[in-house]
Amino acid sequence: MAPSVQPSSSPLRTSEGDEKYANVKWEELGFSLIPTDCMYVAKCRQGESFTEGKIVPYGDISISPCCPILNYGQGLFEGLKAYRTEDDRILIFRPHENALRMQDGAERLCMAQPSVEFFVEAVKQTVLANKKWVPPPGKGALYIRPLLIGSGAILGVAPAPEYTFLIYASPVGDYHKASSGLNLRVDHKSHRAHSGGTGGVKSCTNYSPVVKSLVEAKSSGFSDVLFLDAATGRNIEEASACNIFIVKGNIVSTPPTSGTILPGITRKSISELARDIGYQVQERDVSVDELLEADEVFCTGTAVVVKAVETVTFHDKKVKYRTGKEALSKKLHSMLTSIQTGLVEDTKGWMVDIDPCQG
Amino acid sequence: MAPSVQPSSSPLRTSEGDEKYANVKWEELGFSLIPTDCMYVAKCRQGESFTEGKIVPYGDISISPCCPILNYGQGLFEGLKAYRTEDDRILIFRPHENALRMQDGAERLCMAQPSVEFFVEAVKQTVLANKKWVPPPGKGALYIRPLLIGSGAILGVAPAPEYTFLIYASPVGDYHKASSGLNLRVDHKSHRAHSGGTGGVKSCTNYSPVVKSLVEAKSSGFSDVLFLDAATGRNIEEASACNIFIVKGNIVSTPPTSGTILPGITRKSISELARDIGYQVQERDVSVDELLEADEVFCTGTAVVVKAVETVTFHDKKVKYRTGKEALSKKLHSMLTSIQTGLVEDTKGWMVDIDPCQG
Ligand SMILES: Cc1ncc(COP(=O)(O)O)c(C=O)c1O
Ligand SMILES: Cc1ncc(COP(=O)(O)O)c(C=O)c1O
Repeated sequence: MAPSVQPSSSPLRTSEGDEKYANVKWEELGFSLIPTDCMYVAKCRQGESFTEGKIVPYGDISISPCCPILNYGQGLFEGLKAYRTEDDRILIFRPHENALRMQDGAERLCMAQPSVEFFVEAVKQTVLANKKWVPPPGKGALYIRPLLIGSGAILGVAPAPEYTFLIYASPVGDYHKASSGLNLRVDHKSHRAHSGGTGGVKSCTNYSPVVKSLVEAKSSGFSDVLFLDAATGRNIEEASACNIFIVKGNIVSTPPTSGTILPGITRKSISELARDIGYQVQERDVSVDELLEADEVFCTGTAVVVKAVETVTFHDKKVKYRTGKEALSKKLHSMLTSIQTGLVEDTKGWMVDIDPCQG
Repeated sequence: MAPSVQPSSSPLRTSEGDEKYANVKWEELGFSLIPTDCMYVAKCRQGESFTEGKIVPYGDISISPCCPILNYGQGLFEGLKAYRTEDDRILIFRPHENALRMQDGAERLCMAQPSVEFFVEAVKQTVLANKKWVPPPGKGALYIRPLLIGSGAILGVAPAPEYTFLIYASPVGDYHKASSGLNLRVDHKSHRAHSGGTGGVKSCTNYSPVVKSLVEAKSSGFSDVLFLDAATGRNIEEASACNIFIVKGNIVSTPPTSGTILPGITRKSISELARDIGYQVQERDVSVDELLEADEVFCTGTAVVVKAVETVTFHDKKVKYRTGKEALSKKLHSMLTSIQTGLVEDTKGWMVDIDPCQG
């Protein structure tokens, strides 16, 4: 693997940056790739552990055509964000949780596992090396994408003999631009996951299979697809890249993490915040019927943060939900982002400062 | 993408080749990678079509860390074989079928599709360029591995903006070495596929999720895992990389291709050959109960060809089947390989000669 400097052009790059900030049109950030200066790369053989990695210029990687990530989908990814505070510190949201989730995934896909310490240290180094790409306060975040891939050559279906752990990053703004809420379509034909499969880990194999349903929904004007469980077809699971919650009176409910949905870190954090302000949070099967009768519905994820669902369409039925200022999702969004951006004190120990002196 | 010459070492390479043959210990071939001289590479943008590719030295490819094959499993593969005949022609087995199957997969994963003509021509060029690596008659085959991968950079879950079609090859011998028959373990916990998923196409996403079950089975002395359908858990589907048939009296039965199993090209060919010699072939749901009461069981696939199953283990029950000279699988194996290696005339139009003068 020999990364090379590859100054990718992006329409969001301006001609000049300065010492503090890269040349990005910060006001116009969406959720698309703006390549940064550096990425992090580490390798290890199967049976060994990741001990050393390095920051290298962002660019293409070199890989064997005969490796399991290209042939057999042996790969995991993570997604997390770093925020710049008003007093110019840079905070990463719950990186230890992403590290643990990657370990679960590595175990499921028979891959070498980065330790939690190794993972978190690598994330910190990546952010530090790309500090100029962390948007100004309130303008977005640096999205951090760790990858763990089976990179060693092997012909048959088996664990790779070598693994690559890589982190790249991109400044991002809103995932769903300029919308008051999501318009979800319930997919009643194809499922995302099945029991005993990989739905509960962040395996690359969970994503390309849903692209078709997603593309079709988007071309019909929907923002995302909501999947039902494969076992009964009656309960909601999650959207293509975020978890879902329904609100009815004082009760907030979300599907349980029993192997077919991703245990979202935003999901976990939002559950805690909702409890903090007196809501009862239930992790349990949620039927489509209940969904259609909810007062409010919202999605959570690193990319979407907390986003109100404006409508859900199931077959011919379209239901509209509470959004806007009165919505619980608005309140929870504000609570969460206030912690993430350092506006309120982090009493939960969620934020990790990349400056070692700040802890 | 800039492939570089990378003379990989393999224990099966001898020090010297000659004009006709590469330096390989042909007697010792198994199913592991022996890198050959050349590979084929073509690219195209989403919405365009593959028009031109080229033969380049075999070696690592260069790819964006932010592309859908590395992050989201947007990839397909194929597997087919070329054989050397006694009179030194080189024949490829049913490449048009692989081309069609890749098209189905590309449609399912929203990828650019190579046309059938483009695919077959690329396979021919790859074999021609690696002619010295096609084993001597009777010693094995050149295994050909076409890949179609989402190689263009994109951050969110969506079809890649650019695709790479690549073919590499390796001389191979037996997939399961020196065994009189396969010992299969029925996996009653995890499934391979679900309805509406990608089980019916050769998507990379179907493989890494089964590695764990496969590794566990192998470490307990089994050759492979047999999966059950996710909907009922009662019917057999296929093994990790081959289809399955059961024989009872004059009836040969195999699970139907209704979206959760791969429509194997060997499966289709063997069904036809079994009918030719008077067997009744049924494509229908086959229950575990029937499997356990069969006279004979065998697997089919490009890698395994036709292979008798010696035992099946389901929970605590282990059943032994007919193998050896009396087995139908032996007869079918001989019929199929006689056509593939040119020992008997190909009256079915299955074999494609790489020499354009031989058609
Ligand atoms: C399928 C899926 N569900 C849910 C989530 C939300 O998880 P998190 O809150 O950890 O980002 C993600 C990732 O963002 C996802 O890909
Ligand atoms: C899951 C699976 N089933 C069946 C087969 C057999 O298909 P074919 O006979 O076309 O090689 C394969 C590939 O070899 C496979 O990967």
